[in-house]
Amino acid sequence: MKDTHHKKNEEYFIEKYLKPLSKKNESFPIPNGDDSSMINFNSLISVDSFVEGQHFPKDLGPFFIGYRSIAVAASDILAMGAKPEGCLLSITINKPSDEWFEEFSNGINEFLEQHKMSLLGGDITKGNLNIGVTVVGKINNKVLKRDGAKVNENIFISGTLGRGYLGRLEYKELDTKLNHFLMPKIPIHDIDKIREVASSCIDVSDGFLIDLKRILISSKVGADIFLNENFCTNGKEDLICGDDYVLCFTSNLDEKDLTKMLPDAHYVGKITKEQKLDVFDQKKNRLNFNKLGWDSFI
Amino acid sequence: MKDTHHKKNEEYFIEKYLKPLSKKNESFPIPNGDDSSMINFNSLISVDSFVEGQHFPKDLGPFFIGYRSIAVAASDILAMGAKPEGCLLSITINKPSDEWFEEFSNGINEFLEQHKMSLLGGDITKGNLNIGVTVVGKINNKVLKRDGAKVNENIFISGTLGRGYLGRLEYKELDTKLNHFLMPKIPIHDIDKIREVASSCIDVSDGFLIDLKRILISSKVGADIFLNENFCTNGKEDLICGDDYVLCFTSNLDEKDLTKMLPDAHYVGKITKEQKLDVFDQKKNRLNFNKLGWDSFI
Repeated sequence: MKDTHHKKNEEYFIEKYLKPLSKKNESFPIPNGDDSSMINFNSLISVDSFVEGQHFPKDLGPFFIGYRSIAVAASDILAMGAKPEGCLLSITINKPSDEWFEEFSNGINEFLEQHKMSLLGGDITKGNLNIGVTVVGKINNKVLKRDGAKVNENIFISGTLGRGYLGRLEYKELDTKLNHFLMPKIPIHDIDKIREVASSCIDVSDGFLIDLKRILISSKVGADIFLNENFCTNGKEDLICGDDYVLCFTSNLDEKDLTKMLPDAHYVGKITKEQKLDVFDQKKNRLNFNKLGWDSFI
Repeated sequence: MKDTHHKKNEEYFIEKYLKPLSKKNESFPIPNGDDSSMINFNSLISVDSFVEGQHFPKDLGPFFIGYRSIAVAASDILAMGAKPEGCLLSITINKPSDEWFEEFSNGINEFLEQHKMSLLGGDITKGNLNIGVTVVGKINNKVLKRDGAKVNENIFISGTLGRGYLGRLEYKELDTKLNHFLMPKIPIHDIDKIREVASSCIDVSDGFLIDLKRILISSKVGADIFLNENFCTNGKEDLICGDDYVLCFTSNLDEKDLTKMLPDAHYVGKITKEQKLDVFDQKKNRLNFNKLGWDSFI
């Protein structure tokens, strides 16, 4: 039997750079390498694609492409009130090299280690750089959906807005470890508490206003938002810039009780009956926005 | 609240063409549209990417791009001895249009309906055409892996080889419904029986010899293959052409008992102790191959 591993084909890169990231345990009883992976729990699942030039700049290092892709995809599992536990990668790349894969898999590994996640499988294909990430998480008695917001509930975000936007603008200057665009921080340590108190939840990826609007449409309610510099990094534009990966959730808890429980969280507004979304500054003036967030097609 | 649905953005195409394909049931209790999808069973999961120019020709119609992508991805779940039940799509496309999405979603729907599957979620991104498919299936007491083949067992394939190769060569001439490249037929009706009798299994996607070799490596055994025109469409090249999506499996059943149970299946050879792979023609001459199958990078 001929050994094809000296040729740098799909198997070569999978064996060398991806398989070492997989962990066999009770939840994932089959090690990476068969046709499918096995998940031994009732699960949440989400997919996301990351395209060069769209989701990250062309000159971004593979370490950050890897780290950022998993972080952003994992955020969708948090948004449903669960912890991400495993992921699969579908990598399309024109010229795979050891240098690229070493950096890339280091970035993936850094995120997986920090978040106690495992790589479950994947494939590698020739073509323009496109990172497809599938993330799974274990359901923990309650699932947070978008349709649970109720009139008079308070709206909270799990952290400040605009850090990803700042990181994207200054991604060459900022210390990479502090750059929320290159290495998004997702609120994994708060998720058990948020699941307890939230009636609806979404992650802020495309922009706070457009993502909040998705809750409002699903829940058939409206909202008044009270802009406050306490929860912004740059200014008013933080409401629509996206790349935040904080959670936006609704709860009947009042501001004081909630921030005692979740010190990083901020009160941002109130759910209203009329199905419209208004934003006010601290002087009670209504603010206007040309768009509510980011869409790759418009 | 402004309705952005008149703009043809990601949400427009998801709402109009993808959401109608999702079905809510006991296994998938949350309808398509939240951040993640919920799976209410212990599952197998697999991902695959399909790139224009690599996996399908540039001028292929969107109906077949859709049908073929799901079929090929679903084959990996069958290979583990389970039925595919749901899928998620991650579509990267430069210029989405209603025409494209209508044809594409019809192709997806045709496959999903035929195989009683549901669409669980997905995303759409701007970039060069790349269809990422995640498929999940329910585990049915036994999982077929690659490492279970034992010396002296027989090797079978669930159908004839070379039909996908012929369909790819003649994809403009052949009746599309009969074209195994455009609309691969996966052996979903045989899987319950195959699971019962097989000790190891893989789907033939890259080429019969390269895929069989993966079983041999995992199982630490070898094989003698006896080429026979009964299980070929074109000739010797069918052993390495790929695009077959039949299952290759090992079993201690003899040829007669197995083909009584699975009339479309063929005996193709025997598992041997020595870790090498030999192919013989009907005159017992050993055949040589320059390569064992397809790899997008070599």
